[in-house]
Amino acid sequence: MTKTILVALGGNAIKSADDEGTAAEQFANVYKASAELVKLIKAGYKLVVTHGNGPQAGNLLIQQEEGKKFVPDMPLDVVGAMTQGQLGYMFAQALGNLLRKEGIETPVAALVNQVLVSADDPDYLDPSKPVGPFFTEAEAAQLKIDKPDWLIKEVKPKTVEKRFRRVVASPKPKANVESDVIRRMIDAGIIVIASGGGGVPVIEGANGLEGTAAVIDKDIAGAKLAEIIGADVLLILTDVAHAKLNYGKPNETNVGTVSLSEMHTLAEGGDFLAGSMGPKVRACMKFVEKGGARAIITSLDHAYDAITGNFGTQIVQ
Amino acid sequence: MTKTILVALGGNAIKSADDEGTAAEQFANVYKASAELVKLIKAGYKLVVTHGNGPQAGNLLIQQEEGKKFVPDMPLDVVGAMTQGQLGYMFAQALGNLLRKEGIETPVAALVNQVLVSADDPDYLDPSKPVGPFFTEAEAAQLKIDKPDWLIKEVKPKTVEKRFRRVVASPKPKANVESDVIRRMIDAGIIVIASGGGGVPVIEGANGLEGTAAVIDKDIAGAKLAEIIGADVLLILTDVAHAKLNYGKPNETNVGTVSLSEMHTLAEGGDFLAGSMGPKVRACMKFVEKGGARAIITSLDHAYDAITGNFGTQIVQ
Repeated sequence: MTKTILVALGGNAIKSADDEGTAAEQFANVYKASAELVKLIKAGYKLVVTHGNGPQAGNLLIQQEEGKKFVPDMPLDVVGAMTQGQLGYMFAQALGNLLRKEGIETPVAALVNQVLVSADDPDYLDPSKPVGPFFTEAEAAQLKIDKPDWLIKEVKPKTVEKRFRRVVASPKPKANVESDVIRRMIDAGIIVIASGGGGVPVIEGANGLEGTAAVIDKDIAGAKLAEIIGADVLLILTDVAHAKLNYGKPNETNVGTVSLSEMHTLAEGGDFLAGSMGPKVRACMKFVEKGGARAIITSLDHAYDAITGNFGTQIVQ
Repeated sequence: MTKTILVALGGNAIKSADDEGTAAEQFANVYKASAELVKLIKAGYKLVVTHGNGPQAGNLLIQQEEGKKFVPDMPLDVVGAMTQGQLGYMFAQALGNLLRKEGIETPVAALVNQVLVSADDPDYLDPSKPVGPFFTEAEAAQLKIDKPDWLIKEVKPKTVEKRFRRVVASPKPKANVESDVIRRMIDAGIIVIASGGGGVPVIEGANGLEGTAAVIDKDIAGAKLAEIIGADVLLILTDVAHAKLNYGKPNETNVGTVSLSEMHTLAEGGDFLAGSMGPKVRACMKFVEKGGARAIITSLDHAYDAITGNFGTQIVQ
């Protein structure tokens, strides 16, 4: 029985902090990531790929802001869908090209993908996810008039003047709207790219689904999708080879293979639940709690070792 | 045997000339178009939906231009993919909501879709498709330095000063890169939204497929996709109920149901081959030449009458 891996790639696997963010840079990074994924496909695994979109949505929101004196800016759900088009295209092209070079004809396709959240999610009460450009105090004051539904907060400043930013909720995913389609595509032998940027966030409105100004964590959304499609492994690829205990302290230790209950005990220490590792650990625990066999956190260049040789941080039943 | 219809919707079915182009306006138009498509689905047809992206790509190119002092602008292939995300999301959401209201559970999904063209297409020798914002003579001169690969031409001016625009090729589609995926999705019972904006244009490069700065006509690309998937009907929905002979003259006549050879004779008159009707007529003729049973040109509100009652301009074998 072919095993299915849901791979979650970080947004900075596509645009690193040093990159300006040109299409050429992004394509180069997408090719680098795709080459690692091809190793897994060659080893016989079925893949579903998801990816972050932070840097891409950030740039697009700046462009929307700069262009709005001429053309209307799009809301955050539509911006999310646009980055799914952008990154889905890059991954479909890169993966397709690399596979054909290996003589592998497995089709690849990127799906525009909505993810359902609850309008009652507690995160809407105190949104904390900053998105888009930094603003000066004067710009922030003007935005409160122009965009009454935006929440503008003082955040860690970019410059002394530019210290205001829009913040939105980061609600938990309840369901993947196109999960039935994704399942049918996997069954049809297609490598699917889905849930990009955590999915286009939608809520149940009066007339059906409608977009909401939110950003869903892409690892948590990936874990939800992995659960729904019954993936065997959730593989979260990030900058570091392992999650670490006592991060940055003299007694810093890599977390290797641990059981879910061991991970619960470690997590109670609170060590890696803050910052960017937190949602990754939570996503992994959630997936295994829901019956997933194995959840892994490691770096892109160790993806193959992690799957075939138990490298990285692994949570098992 | 369920019949499959490839429906091609004009970009101005989503943003009319009067619209500013806000997301709310576009969603309202997408809902209006989707309601007509739901009638066809209820009548038992399988649909594949394609759509134009002219107004959306135009707005996004303006935003990219305005934002480029802060963040890199994306090339035309990536911009095309972004509009597929945008419009694919809107159609998937609207169609999904309207179908669920009718108690129909048929899944809907939008695909990021590349369309292959030839780098030797004659249209690259004399590109004529204007894209993006209008520029002044000074801006045009600067762009020739900043963007050496852009071709800037004097076009029908927007204002006396703003009379320069980037022009790109409009090559013919050779193949739909994801046609195999689309076929598998149709077989799996999914309503597929694909080939948006004529598809993301790609050529065969040294390392596989790569994007090209071009715009493929969405009706011609739709006809190609209809041919590849073996659709029974190509249904091109536009602003008018019929293609017309002697358009704008006292002896103006609607074209009704005609055979392919009759249409060839009419087309030789040259009447509707210029302007926006030309590519639609050519797309229809191509589809029937390649074995398609029926190709239709009519307006959105007559889609159902056209399919069930032979309304509109119909080309048959």
